[in-house]
Amino acid sequence: MKEIKKLLVANRGEIALRVLRSAREMGLQTVAIYSEADRNALHVRYADEAVCVGPPASAESYLRGDKILEVCRQLGVDAIHPGYGFLSENAHFARQVQQAGLVFVGPSPEAMELMGSKLAAKQAVSQYGIPMVPGTEEAISDVEAAKQVAREVGFPILIKASAGGGGKGMRVVNAETEFEEQMQLAVSEATSAFGDGAVFIEKYIGAPRHIEIQVLGDEHGSILHLFERECSIQRRHQKVIEEAPSSVLTPELRAAMGQCAVDVARACNYTGAGTVEFLLDENHNFYFLEMNTRLQVEHPVTEQITGLDLVKEQIKVAQGLPLSFGQADLKIQGHALELRVYAEDPANNFLPDIGTLTTYVRPQGPGVRVDDGFEQGMDIPIYYDPMIAKLVTFGQDRTEAIARMLRAIDEYQITGIQTTLPFGRFVLQHPAFVSGQFDTNFIRDHFTPADLAPAPDEETLKLAAVFTAMLLETKKPQATPAESEPAGTSSAWRRNRLGLR
Amino acid sequence: MKEIKKLLVANRGEIALRVLRSAREMGLQTVAIYSEADRNALHVRYADEAVCVGPPASAESYLRGDKILEVCRQLGVDAIHPGYGFLSENAHFARQVQQAGLVFVGPSPEAMELMGSKLAAKQAVSQYGIPMVPGTEEAISDVEAAKQVAREVGFPILIKASAGGGGKGMRVVNAETEFEEQMQLAVSEATSAFGDGAVFIEKYIGAPRHIEIQVLGDEHGSILHLFERECSIQRRHQKVIEEAPSSVLTPELRAAMGQCAVDVARACNYTGAGTVEFLLDENHNFYFLEMNTRLQVEHPVTEQITGLDLVKEQIKVAQGLPLSFGQADLKIQGHALELRVYAEDPANNFLPDIGTLTTYVRPQGPGVRVDDGFEQGMDIPIYYDPMIAKLVTFGQDRTEAIARMLRAIDEYQITGIQTTLPFGRFVLQHPAFVSGQFDTNFIRDHFTPADLAPAPDEETLKLAAVFTAMLLETKKPQATPAESEPAGTSSAWRRNRLGLR
Repeated sequence: MKEIKKLLVANRGEIALRVLRSAREMGLQTVAIYSEADRNALHVRYADEAVCVGPPASAESYLRGDKILEVCRQLGVDAIHPGYGFLSENAHFARQVQQAGLVFVGPSPEAMELMGSKLAAKQAVSQYGIPMVPGTEEAISDVEAAKQVAREVGFPILIKASAGGGGKGMRVVNAETEFEEQMQLAVSEATSAFGDGAVFIEKYIGAPRHIEIQVLGDEHGSILHLFERECSIQRRHQKVIEEAPSSVLTPELRAAMGQCAVDVARACNYTGAGTVEFLLDENHNFYFLEMNTRLQVEHPVTEQITGLDLVKEQIKVAQGLPLSFGQADLKIQGHALELRVYAEDPANNFLPDIGTLTTYVRPQGPGVRVDDGFEQGMDIPIYYDPMIAKLVTFGQDRTEAIARMLRAIDEYQITGIQTTLPFGRFVLQHPAFVSGQFDTNFIRDHFTPADLAPAPDEETLKLAAVFTAMLLETKKPQATPAESEPAGTSSAWRRNRLGLR
Repeated sequence: MKEIKKLLVANRGEIALRVLRSAREMGLQTVAIYSEADRNALHVRYADEAVCVGPPASAESYLRGDKILEVCRQLGVDAIHPGYGFLSENAHFARQVQQAGLVFVGPSPEAMELMGSKLAAKQAVSQYGIPMVPGTEEAISDVEAAKQVAREVGFPILIKASAGGGGKGMRVVNAETEFEEQMQLAVSEATSAFGDGAVFIEKYIGAPRHIEIQVLGDEHGSILHLFERECSIQRRHQKVIEEAPSSVLTPELRAAMGQCAVDVARACNYTGAGTVEFLLDENHNFYFLEMNTRLQVEHPVTEQITGLDLVKEQIKVAQGLPLSFGQADLKIQGHALELRVYAEDPANNFLPDIGTLTTYVRPQGPGVRVDDGFEQGMDIPIYYDPMIAKLVTFGQDRTEAIARMLRAIDEYQITGIQTTLPFGRFVLQHPAFVSGQFDTNFIRDHFTPADLAPAPDEETLKLAAVFTAMLLETKKPQATPAESEPAGTSSAWRRNRLGLR
């Protein structure tokens, strides 16, 4: 038992605030770090103590492990929660934390290293018979040998950087004639992006669904799975909408994938919360992709369907406590959805749309949870991931969770920047999503910017507000309908409902 | 099947908004009514249409059934949800609604009438062997006969108005010598308060717990119970903190009370959502008190532990649909708490403290739900119940729900008026509450205003903010702790944490 009394959260934004909330509920003292760009951020105000660690650029602040360890030494911190991103999957930093006599809330550096390399991970789990996409098991550099593998697997094939992620260093090759050129491009891309030109070759799955399994392990040999999350709605290979459970998994498939995920975690003696990612093909065959050795952005959907607080579980495991439940105690309760609200313009290829949150009013009410790190009047800084909030809804079943998400999107009032809220509304109403018949190509197959009603600019909104106020003055006192709106307008708040959105 | 397309909510404040949210999720068109005092209220802005029905006084607006029916006629409304309070338990209004060819979202007028009279209710359920507090079964006017009953029951006894509620017309009589005078006072009090001097006499239970059972019935003969809520923390005989499940019910007691509640509902052919209230004495004997034939203020705690949306269930039942689940499908999931945030000064005998919400920032994050009808800058009107919000937290177990409630209370930022938030913090930290050893006398036994740290006035808060801003400017850029706070301060937001609250 390594008692934690004072926890430093080495992160920013919504995840820093979210971790601080659980730490506070556990009675821990809390320390926030921040860059000069985040001086007024909510996580800074929420923590018991807060320390500036450098200029806005991440490399000079949130990634400066040395400064963070110095803060821990000065303030008597005994544990660090890394959140996601930044230092969360940096085995070197985790080792330094341990060497400083502190608790790293996460798996061992060895597990992080093993799973940080796609090839090493594949080799480590091979003894467990985990299904993997057919292809090379080792890094390849010889073009002719690689071509031979590609022939055996059958085109189309995928060339992937061993150290890659987020779609970087990935190339689809449809025919043997293109192979040589594409492989050379992939190797050089991987070298420049990750400093490691190792690639492997695998069967290309054309219409995959991204299904991942949440796992949780303790230091006493117990490893459980907390069911799946489906994250197939992606833009630029990045998740936008996630849900649990998946609309396509049968109980048998869920159990099989859950067991595989537990085996992957066991292969690296995993402790804490981790995620095993799979692809599911059109015939519902699943293939191991990789393991993420941290808390995922989309962990709230798992929390909602299991009733667990994953951050608290992480901290308890890091203290050396055994899990207080077994696999049989876990049941899926209802259905949960998450929409990532990004400061991006979905009508303009999801390019970041940084600026000031002129209006920022969160949705409320039953079945709605908002994890964010901003309030009205704040700027979305240009230095970091442009996520404003995670809008989570839950209900008895998928239908209710979808209805609540649409209601919550309509209630959300954000002006000053474009967001993914209208895109979320589009997806949640699309027959492919509603029926559960979709894959990671959803945007390519179903979405064009014209599908979104043009969002009003600020001036139009102001004029509309004035106009509505006049209407209200004139009409409200009589027992007649105040205003009539065209059906299908989208804001829940009638003063914004003059057919503008 | 009586299809509902357009629903009018005959209420205001948080419950109006809460009903509108569920109606929106069901795809219904919505109509709000409002008094002149509520022109800018959130429920008015949220509904598709909104109609002013009169001046601020309830009797001239929210209680004007005739005006409400006229609005329905004009706007093509086909159903009315009454919320709680106002017309929600008015059988005459419910009958008028039906006669106008509209759906009243609630039980039949007959059930409302039967349960609206304590004596009639007791008589109606007598065939089911429901345990009742020993006493008279009929209204009594003869003092000598009443005294004879009191002798048989044994002092102390309680004299209660048949038509009463909220503690009005209730008198405890400790000895026979006081009986005659107290009975005469009770009759005259009941006559002037309710226009009905009928009283009954029952055994006085000194340290009761208030436990109520949520029931749900459809028009096809199915009546289920949705477990209990404990509402023993009361001030002036009004609930302030509720929870589900109760910390004292065994599964056997829960099943027995649940069955009794279902029997009570069956005795009046109940349809929709209703609540059967019981007293539980120190030996865990339970006694039927009364049935409330409407949605309760505290219904969210039941929603959180069952995963059901009670408003949607009410509307589905009102449409004639059968319940989609049976008793065996219902399971208690976790634990939920509700704190009613009233505009009241707990340090001054909970007297209303009406004014402007100068600051109003809701808590967020996992396991927190806020049902309210206000936003920053709004006034709490003097005309109605001074409830600002219902703060609901839920977790895996009671300990987690309590920790979350404390965290959420600390996050809640309200200035401009005094609220019950500090009282909530006091109760949630009190050993009697934490251990589950409490009854409806909690305030009498455990609370004095001195238990609350004096709340800072507005000027002090402003000065503190300036001071803190100066501190931040000076200290933040260095890698040193920003500010040190004394342990045990209560706001989650550090800029308010200079030992002021």
